[in-house]
Amino acid sequence: MRIVVPAGGIGAARFLRGLRAAVPEAEVTVVGNTGDDITLFGLRICPDLDTVMYTLGGGIAEEQGWGRAEETFVVQEELTAYGVEPAWFGLGDRDLATHVVRTQMLDAGYPLSEVTAALCARWEPGVRLLPMSDDRVETHVVIEDAGGRRAIHFQEYWVRHRASMPALEVVAVGADRSRPGPGVLDAIESADLVLLPPSNPVVSIGTILSVPGLRAAFEATSAPVVGLSPIVDGAPVRGMADQVLAAIGVDASAAAVALHYGPQLLDGWLVDRSDADAVPVVSEAGIACRAVPLLMRDIDASAAMARAALDLAAGLVRS
Amino acid sequence: MRIVVPAGGIGAARFLRGLRAAVPEAEVTVVGNTGDDITLFGLRICPDLDTVMYTLGGGIAEEQGWGRAEETFVVQEELTAYGVEPAWFGLGDRDLATHVVRTQMLDAGYPLSEVTAALCARWEPGVRLLPMSDDRVETHVVIEDAGGRRAIHFQEYWVRHRASMPALEVVAVGADRSRPGPGVLDAIESADLVLLPPSNPVVSIGTILSVPGLRAAFEATSAPVVGLSPIVDGAPVRGMADQVLAAIGVDASAAAVALHYGPQLLDGWLVDRSDADAVPVVSEAGIACRAVPLLMRDIDASAAMARAALDLAAGLVRS
Repeated sequence: MRIVVPAGGIGAARFLRGLRAAVPEAEVTVVGNTGDDITLFGLRICPDLDTVMYTLGGGIAEEQGWGRAEETFVVQEELTAYGVEPAWFGLGDRDLATHVVRTQMLDAGYPLSEVTAALCARWEPGVRLLPMSDDRVETHVVIEDAGGRRAIHFQEYWVRHRASMPALEVVAVGADRSRPGPGVLDAIESADLVLLPPSNPVVSIGTILSVPGLRAAFEATSAPVVGLSPIVDGAPVRGMADQVLAAIGVDASAAAVALHYGPQLLDGWLVDRSDADAVPVVSEAGIACRAVPLLMRDIDASAAMARAALDLAAGLVRS
Repeated sequence: MRIVVPAGGIGAARFLRGLRAAVPEAEVTVVGNTGDDITLFGLRICPDLDTVMYTLGGGIAEEQGWGRAEETFVVQEELTAYGVEPAWFGLGDRDLATHVVRTQMLDAGYPLSEVTAALCARWEPGVRLLPMSDDRVETHVVIEDAGGRRAIHFQEYWVRHRASMPALEVVAVGADRSRPGPGVLDAIESADLVLLPPSNPVVSIGTILSVPGLRAAFEATSAPVVGLSPIVDGAPVRGMADQVLAAIGVDASAAAVALHYGPQLLDGWLVDRSDADAVPVVSEAGIACRAVPLLMRDIDASAAMARAALDLAAGLVRS
């Protein structure tokens, strides 16, 4: 079975680990969000790709969900001693080596997809990890503060400011000129199943869908498309989905996110048991919907969620 | 008193520390060798400039003589886990931060001289540290091994191979097109004294002199030029001066190095007491010569050497 999973960071990575446990024989292709990517200290950082790679490859800082296990921060400490900004991005030494390798390969002319494959040769994540695009796309968030109305990089909004001010607008800078990464369209077209993990519908899945051609491919594939709600009991399980959903005028509810994706894209949708009242609303829109436990407390819980998604898909004919 | 010191790495740095202790009121301008510079992992590394900066700024790994105190090697370990070459260059985490800052500034368009000044703003070495040139000059060593006759970077010759094969030729690649760094010619012209520390006469001082205009400036300055022999008792105190001296046909002896520099450049020369027999030979060539203790066991010994050089200079009229 060929499964395609468009993926953000922590939530997607944990879901993918459950999926691998549930169906180890499946060929999983991950279409990774690169809209969170940022260049800091001259190093190219791809937080979502790395979170998927480290989590599936056994290198993740487990509790934290991002970054490397047994991490140290000597280089960051020294950069701060030099007065080099920014100090708000926690850049670990082990993690930094990944960015050094990536930056060196990019500077040598390799596209991000080949760089990612080279990095994965070490981590062996057990999935094919494809960047959504080899072109540079960076998500910016429009805010308004003492400095006036201005756009800041998503990492600055989230990591530096902890999404503490409203997101007025979310813009995937460069998306309009980007092309799907090598292999991405083929994977979607030949998939047996597409699963949308409980990633952020705006800055993760939304950014992936903003690459010209990708939304159409997900809508056109003959494979069923089943998603899992990142909103549980009216709030994001983690992250700032509520803030960025507000920016695009979508309620932070399991039903509203399904309707935002829409029946053109979605064939099935899983909501948490606490959101059972969303089931009739979503079903009425033409999206098969079930309520199941949606908290990824451990790998077993994540695997159970993956199985629930497979079960739902098994009963679907692509509309 | 304005003193100019063309400088290599460890030997020069320790001598400079002694000089600062001997004449704290002097304005010292260091013309640093950049021929050892190398780009590894996409990072620009300037070993000699950093050794001078760290030593005078209190950040050096004291026993080792190069690199940072309290160093860790997490990034290097990770790079090796990625299979990224080379593994032979010991790149510490603290040291790496310096290269990250430097590379980022160079990529942003700052010349090496401004980058060096920015790094020194943290370390406050108490001297003005000027790169010999803002242009890229890299010393290569011609060797012959199973791979045939070929040129390798000086760092590969020295750090990787520990100078274990003969150096057939030494070439400062790029030197012929390089220009003296900002402030270098002015400093030499307006100096009251020039001191050649016990640096490598070929790959440190020799490389500095290979920048067009610099040898002429050192020969033309009205300041006396006094050097200290890096060869003691027929062998380099440290490093591979004997190997690279052989490449240019000069004996590894205190007298031969003085004659190699020649009376056009040198007004005075200090040899170690064990090389007292060099004194009449060097003097006969028109270079004032004295035998004094030349081992930099500690700062006191280095300061005594600096005072001996000042004493010798005081009795000289520039020829």
